Amino acid sequence: MDEHIVKSYDEELKFIVRRICEMGGQAEHLVERAVNAMVKSDLAMAEAVITDDALLDAAQRELDERAIMTIAKRQPMARDLREIVGAIRISNDLERIGDLGKNIAKRVIAVHDHPQPMQLVRGIEHLSELTLQQLKEVLDAYVERDHQRAERIRDKDEAIDAVYTSIFRELLTYMMEDPRNISACTHLLFSAKNIERIGDHATNIAETIYYIRTGAQMGPERPKSDRTTSIVVPPEAAGSAPASEA
Amino acid sequence: MDEHIVKSYDEELKFIVRRICEMGGQAEHLVERAVNAMVKSDLAMAEAVITDDALLDAAQRELDERAIMTIAKRQPMARDLREIVGAIRISNDLERIGDLGKNIAKRVIAVHDHPQPMQLVRGIEHLSELTLQQLKEVLDAYVERDHQRAERIRDKDEAIDAVYTSIFRELLTYMMEDPRNISACTHLLFSAKNIERIGDHATNIAETIYYIRTGAQMGPERPKSDRTTSIVVPPEAAGSAPASEA
Repeated sequence: MDEHIVKSYDEELKFIVRRICEMGGQAEHLVERAVNAMVKSDLAMAEAVITDDALLDAAQRELDERAIMTIAKRQPMARDLREIVGAIRISNDLERIGDLGKNIAKRVIAVHDHPQPMQLVRGIEHLSELTLQQLKEVLDAYVERDHQRAERIRDKDEAIDAVYTSIFRELLTYMMEDPRNISACTHLLFSAKNIERIGDHATNIAETIYYIRTGAQMGPERPKSDRTTSIVVPPEAAGSAPASEA
Repeated sequence: MDEHIVKSYDEELKFIVRRICEMGGQAEHLVERAVNAMVKSDLAMAEAVITDDALLDAAQRELDERAIMTIAKRQPMARDLREIVGAIRISNDLERIGDLGKNIAKRVIAVHDHPQPMQLVRGIEHLSELTLQQLKEVLDAYVERDHQRAERIRDKDEAIDAVYTSIFRELLTYMMEDPRNISACTHLLFSAKNIERIGDHATNIAETIYYIRTGAQMGPERPKSDRTTSIVVPPEAAGSAPASEA
């Protein structure tokens, strides 16, 4: 950590931005390994993810304090102020992404000796690929401060939600087919939900980039994220046709 | 809204603190009604909760901007700075409590025409009572800036987790008994998880109060919150003895 080196205001700003980029890389890596640990039932990797999340928590706390001290000392206005406030918001989103990854890793222990159906595992892998792609793109947009790219990224959250909805249905159907699947599927359900929420945080970051660059809120209202809150799968659907919405 | 009236620094601080208290009351009320809507299958109340959450989002955004402008303009140090930073953190927690309440309300639609077993409903009511009590106490501790009380509140999070863990087991067992319960129980499962997370946010607020008052972090590490991540209920347990942990 290069504390005490920071001297000028400009350097303080650069430090904060660089730290956000580092945290972004850590968060991506953490989520990737958490899903890998889940898919491969890799307990050692799951343990490593749980440990590493603490680093992200510490980074967020440090960035938070640093950013606030910079605001207090330097009284930045307009774009500079938005840069720092934006960094606080983004680091908060990244820290929560880390928590969600950790929560997936914790579930690996519960799921690891239950056979998981290939189709479900593929679904969760696909969901996490989309979400990690979203996260990667939003971090690139942050580096470039590209608010138009940020807008396009937000729109792509729809695709993640559609995949999550289909996994949600599949999981319920699978639980209905055989009660022995219920415990494992419940943890997969929470894991899928966590990945979907990581997508929401990527969307938050996109909105923050827009705010940093333009000083305005990205409008109109973001699309509804989780549509599964109203899904009911009738038990008759289990083992037959795809489930229908109530 | 009394914008433009705020004149002195002291008034700005008071405005921020007052607004946090208002948001706290709104968040409490929102969660209470969300759980009531769930328990009574009251769709109109659920709709009202979903609408009202937008007010909390707007209040958080306004407080955030106001607090940051105050930091930039007034360069507060030490306790004053912690007051404002603390307010930003607490309003973030309150906004997320509102989101979790809204998410419960959205699930009322999916669950409302499925018969819910009394025991489960009682469990969720009990969980929400404990959590609302925790939230109420932490808001009182904020008003009093009582960091010792905040410490005691954090310790009580254990009780909420224990009740959540028992509801989690019950829900899995109930799903195994009859596949027709699976859809509704999944939504109850997410609702219970949301209430447990509201308890975590109350804990965050307790930690922030400690920070405002003392300038230090509350130590040692907060207790592990969600222990259900490792729970596996064997299907044989359904309908018979209480489920055992894997």
